[in-house]
Amino acid sequence: MPHDAVTRFEAALGDAVSRDAAVLDAMREDRSGWRSEHAALAVVSPRTVAEVQTAMRIASETGTPVVPRGAGTGLAGGGISSEGSIVLDVSGLDRILEIDRADELAVVEPGVINGELNDALAEHGLWYAPDPASRAISSIGGNIATNAGGLLCAKYGVTRESVLGLKVVLADGRLIETGHRTVKGVTGYDLTALFTGSEGTLGVIVEATLRLRPLVAGATTTIAAAFPDVEAAAAASASVTAAGIRPAVLELLDALALERIAAYLGPEPVAGTPLAGIRPGETFLLAQSDAGAADEAAEIARLFEAAGGRVTASTDEATGERLLGIRRAMHPALAATGQVLIEDVAVPRSKLPEMFRAIERIGREYDVEIPVVAHAGDGNLHPNFVFEGETVPPKVWEAADAMFRTAVELGGTLTGEHGVGVLKRRWLADELGDDSYGLQRRIKAVFDPAGILNPGVMFAETAEKV
Amino acid sequence: MPHDAVTRFEAALGDAVSRDAAVLDAMREDRSGWRSEHAALAVVSPRTVAEVQTAMRIASETGTPVVPRGAGTGLAGGGISSEGSIVLDVSGLDRILEIDRADELAVVEPGVINGELNDALAEHGLWYAPDPASRAISSIGGNIATNAGGLLCAKYGVTRESVLGLKVVLADGRLIETGHRTVKGVTGYDLTALFTGSEGTLGVIVEATLRLRPLVAGATTTIAAAFPDVEAAAAASASVTAAGIRPAVLELLDALALERIAAYLGPEPVAGTPLAGIRPGETFLLAQSDAGAADEAAEIARLFEAAGGRVTASTDEATGERLLGIRRAMHPALAATGQVLIEDVAVPRSKLPEMFRAIERIGREYDVEIPVVAHAGDGNLHPNFVFEGETVPPKVWEAADAMFRTAVELGGTLTGEHGVGVLKRRWLADELGDDSYGLQRRIKAVFDPAGILNPGVMFAETAEKV
Repeated sequence: MPHDAVTRFEAALGDAVSRDAAVLDAMREDRSGWRSEHAALAVVSPRTVAEVQTAMRIASETGTPVVPRGAGTGLAGGGISSEGSIVLDVSGLDRILEIDRADELAVVEPGVINGELNDALAEHGLWYAPDPASRAISSIGGNIATNAGGLLCAKYGVTRESVLGLKVVLADGRLIETGHRTVKGVTGYDLTALFTGSEGTLGVIVEATLRLRPLVAGATTTIAAAFPDVEAAAAASASVTAAGIRPAVLELLDALALERIAAYLGPEPVAGTPLAGIRPGETFLLAQSDAGAADEAAEIARLFEAAGGRVTASTDEATGERLLGIRRAMHPALAATGQVLIEDVAVPRSKLPEMFRAIERIGREYDVEIPVVAHAGDGNLHPNFVFEGETVPPKVWEAADAMFRTAVELGGTLTGEHGVGVLKRRWLADELGDDSYGLQRRIKAVFDPAGILNPGVMFAETAEKV
Repeated sequence: MPHDAVTRFEAALGDAVSRDAAVLDAMREDRSGWRSEHAALAVVSPRTVAEVQTAMRIASETGTPVVPRGAGTGLAGGGISSEGSIVLDVSGLDRILEIDRADELAVVEPGVINGELNDALAEHGLWYAPDPASRAISSIGGNIATNAGGLLCAKYGVTRESVLGLKVVLADGRLIETGHRTVKGVTGYDLTALFTGSEGTLGVIVEATLRLRPLVAGATTTIAAAFPDVEAAAAASASVTAAGIRPAVLELLDALALERIAAYLGPEPVAGTPLAGIRPGETFLLAQSDAGAADEAAEIARLFEAAGGRVTASTDEATGERLLGIRRAMHPALAATGQVLIEDVAVPRSKLPEMFRAIERIGREYDVEIPVVAHAGDGNLHPNFVFEGETVPPKVWEAADAMFRTAVELGGTLTGEHGVGVLKRRWLADELGDDSYGLQRRIKAVFDPAGILNPGVMFAETAEKV
């Protein structure tokens, strides 16, 4: 049956269908460090919404699993080929269809790269706020499919808050529209929010209406500080929140992360920054105040100093970029030393010190080093495991398991912004509880009764067993 | 069967169950001007979550329809007794369970009044942003069930953006938790968002974890201006948006609305405001700039003047309250002259002038006066129909129908913030389209297979027919 299916895709979609070995191979991976055991039967790269509909109709009729995929930058294995699947690569649907200054919205296809959208918007004095660290390479469709977060969420919200409406191709090829071109709208259930973060398991997003903001005017001040240990840095971060301040950015890099970044960057890029004189064990906190809020920036610097930080503050854009570059070097610095499994737990902000202590304890217990970067402003931590070879070692999974359980005990969650994918599905039912998990499975079955949309992602079992 | 059911409720819940005629009668109405044809069999007023579960278990076993109800301030008939139903009045579940300064969140029961929550939060330097005009009388549970908007949404978002998690009793009495105590979290589908705005058709909200903000510091400037006509006011509003300014409040009252408010308030409360010297046909625009943004306020005043407005601006709190009081007098002013049907269409901001012209045309065509207040900052209009007697006259429905169709044609929606309820269910399928409507019905069936939760609300048919 599968090969009949491929023939049908080829007959209907011609050279939008590829069985090239290199193309198939690329679809076995994303940026999670995970590699699928299975190559896809074919990769379908539609050029129009109608072709997406055709592909889904054929998939539906032939019972072929479909893996929707965008730029392939996922961190949870949510867009990689699965057994007997076709990969539906929508990265070629990459047009910005409309930018509306008066209504502060844009209409885009899913393949538009986040950073490129913002380049185009800047000319109109507009800005799309969701800012995942992958913004230079990740696409809007993937950002929506994972409800991507990023560095600015405490102040500017997650992706869900910036999506007004969607066009989605359903499992059987029908096209529906959700949401509105308005900020408000309560007509029926919020399907826009339901699709946001659904990781390709409910439908294929083919268009999005995005809420924009005016470009933030006024100078940005970047404040970097080195602290003797992670507790001091976490306390400094908490003191900013306690003062009622919401900086645009508030990032924490622990000592293990700093070591690797310093080794990766070398002395030059960090000259003149607190990282230049960094001492073993020190932790780094990075804040940005935007919109010309000089008083706010001064207050943050004062709070950092009061908490024992060695502070550098600058309104110079190049210096700000250099400081933020230290944070952005985290993933490449780790990737340069081995395979990386990035965890993504979130805890209530007040529990950050406790979570850091738990991560240290877990690292010792399982004998693994766990460098951490945290979006301290919203309690989202990325503990990283670096390992050799293609398979995640069992002790890494065990450490990840211990970490996940601690996060949930602290009132937090398994995944703050990367999604469940295949990497975290083993824990989904544990976090949700059986009743909620059952409801989620039945919602999946409403949209995808035959279970052809991204099977194995999010839910370990197929939808057919509901 | 229904009477057997009441006996079972009484046996299990004792004096939480009332069949008092006056109590039953009160449940036939909300603030929409709509009166149900049917009295409830009984009103159940649970004092604990366990009692809500007991009530739902009995309802489920006996097939008794349940109408969840809070403060009864709805504007769409979403919480009024329906045929053979019990009303589940959760207004007695009114405790603030937790206020957490460090994590900027509160945990509350559904019956807590919005304004009272904010009074309690102010002592902690905190603020819950969703601000429906009914804040003094409406409850958090009802705000969530309708995804309530209000005056501050363009800047501070709708209710959905401030709800982190929920506890919900399902149709069969099981209790589930959704969401997190964290700002970020993407574990599975966003059930929190799905319940928000679901109008009691998916479950009974018994607890909410709310996202708070630090109290906004700095002076608030209120800017009021009278314009010669609605076009000039709409243009002034558009010029504020075009300048990249997002005031906290931006409200528009048209000439018909102003006439009634002036008559209702009398000369004293408006002395010294632009309303004092108001001339026939003039339109009123009201803006507030918060957070000490004096430059922003000055720019708004300048833009209002440039668009032909007669401007009063003040940072004095009492004056600000008096000006905002003009806006808040809208509903009582209309209610004093007859029954009021409040419509709730939203259109993209840029379409406001067009929508105002359409409303004028529809008023002439159907020979009805339609005073309008609009949240101009987010394109949400409340055209009001005032009529005599208990039944909405056919020509009012026809005018409302024409208005709804125009809003959707302009890229807008049937309801921006009040919900569908029973008043607007006739149009739901028209706006959503058959495919989306069908999906919504099937989602309803996942949560409520027997169709006992608020039947007739949102969907005209019962869920059993899915």
